[in-house]
Amino acid sequence: MPRNAAEPSNWRTYLVTQESVSNGRSTLEIVREAIAGGIDVVQLREKETDARWRHELGLELRELTAEAGVDLIVNDRVDIAEAIDADGVHVGQSDLPVAVARDLLGPEAIVGCSAATVEQAHEAEAAGADYLGVGTIYGTTSKDVAEYKDGVGPERVAEIADAVSIPVVGIGGITAENAGPVVEAGAVGVSVISEITAAPDPRAATESLAEAVETAKGVGDGEGTE
Amino acid sequence: MPRNAAEPSNWRTYLVTQESVSNGRSTLEIVREAIAGGIDVVQLREKETDARWRHELGLELRELTAEAGVDLIVNDRVDIAEAIDADGVHVGQSDLPVAVARDLLGPEAIVGCSAATVEQAHEAEAAGADYLGVGTIYGTTSKDVAEYKDGVGPERVAEIADAVSIPVVGIGGITAENAGPVVEAGAVGVSVISEITAAPDPRAATESLAEAVETAKGVGDGEGTE
Repeated sequence: MPRNAAEPSNWRTYLVTQESVSNGRSTLEIVREAIAGGIDVVQLREKETDARWRHELGLELRELTAEAGVDLIVNDRVDIAEAIDADGVHVGQSDLPVAVARDLLGPEAIVGCSAATVEQAHEAEAAGADYLGVGTIYGTTSKDVAEYKDGVGPERVAEIADAVSIPVVGIGGITAENAGPVVEAGAVGVSVISEITAAPDPRAATESLAEAVETAKGVGDGEGTE
Repeated sequence: MPRNAAEPSNWRTYLVTQESVSNGRSTLEIVREAIAGGIDVVQLREKETDARWRHELGLELRELTAEAGVDLIVNDRVDIAEAIDADGVHVGQSDLPVAVARDLLGPEAIVGCSAATVEQAHEAEAAGADYLGVGTIYGTTSKDVAEYKDGVGPERVAEIADAVSIPVVGIGGITAENAGPVVEAGAVGVSVISEITAAPDPRAATESLAEAVETAKGVGDGEGTE
C-alpha cells in the first residue's frame, strides 16, 4: 500500500484535517498551503462529515500528497484508507483495534494509534502499531507554554516514549509556542489541527511549527538551540 | 466472502439492529429471538455507537447467524464487514459508493444500497448493487395501513421494482399490519428495526412479519391469501 515507504520516525509536522475550523477555506486549500510550508504527513479526519464526502476528498488529497511526497493517513476508516490508497490509518481507542486494521491493510501499511496512558501505549505497540499519537497534551488552546490544564502534558510523552520503541507524536492543543517541550520529552513530531487550519497563513504556520520542532530537537540532542 | 451463497432474492424478513430501541435487551438477545422466529437476514447497523463496539458485536452476530444459516450484512462500514466476514454491506447515499464497496469486497460479496427514487435505483444497479433498500416507505409509525405521510409509499416500490432487475426490499415504518402493500408492490421482503426490536416478543413479531410477507406474496402471485 505505501507509495514511497512512508516512515513515521521522519514526521516532524503532522496535520489533521478539519474543514470546520478553517474559516471558510477548503481542506484542499489548507493542505496545499501546509505542503508548501513543508508538512510531513496529513491525516484525513473531518469528523462529523459523511463517508461519501471523505472518500471524495481523500482521492483529491491522495493526488496532492503523492505529488509532494507527503504521507497520507486516514482517521478511523480502514475502508476509506484502502479505497484511496492512503499510506495507512490512525485508530483511536474506540475505533477498530490495531490488530484488525493491520490484518485488513497488510504488513506494509502504517497503522497508528492514539494513546493517553502507558498501558494503552504498550497495548498498541504489542498489537502492531507503527506509531502512537499521544495526548491530549495541552487541554487548553492557551498560548501559554506553562499551562496545560486538563491535558496529559509533555511528561506523559516522556513516560510513553521511554516505555515503547515506536515513534511518538504529540497531539492536542499544540502550537509553535508550546511544541518545544513535547519534542524535548521525546516526541518525533507534533500533530495539529487548528494551529495550521485556523491560521491566517497556514503555510507560515506550518513553517513556524517545523522550526519549533527542529529547534527543540537540537536541544534534545544536546546540540543547543539553533 | 459469502459463507453460504447468500441470496437477496430469498429475503422475506430483514432485521436492522438498533439496541437503543430494544427496551433494555441486548442486540444479541433480539437477534437470537429473531432467528428463532425465522428471520432471513440481519444488518448490523447500531448507528451512534463506535466502531470498536460494532466490531465486537459483529463477531458475535457472525457466529450466531452462521450457525443458523442466516445472512449478515453490515451497514456503511466495509472494513467492519471484511473484519467479521459478513456476507456483505449496505450503503446509503452518503456512504461509500456502491462501486467502491464492490471493489473492496470483491464480486462474491453482497452490496446493497438505499434508494428513495428511480434515479438512485438505476444508479445503484448500474454500479453493481445486488439489492436495493427502498424507503422510507411509511413516514409515520402509525399502524394504519392507509397512512404513510412523509414516506414514499408502496407506489415507489412498484416504480423502482419495475425499473430495475435486482431485488427490492421495503424499509421504513413497516409492520406486520402494513407490510402487505409493500410486497404486493413488488418488494421481495421487508426490512424493520422497531417492529422486531421494540416488540414485547421479538420472536413472535418476526413470525407475524414473515406471515404477512408470505400472505402478500400469495396475493401478488395471484394465488389468493393463505
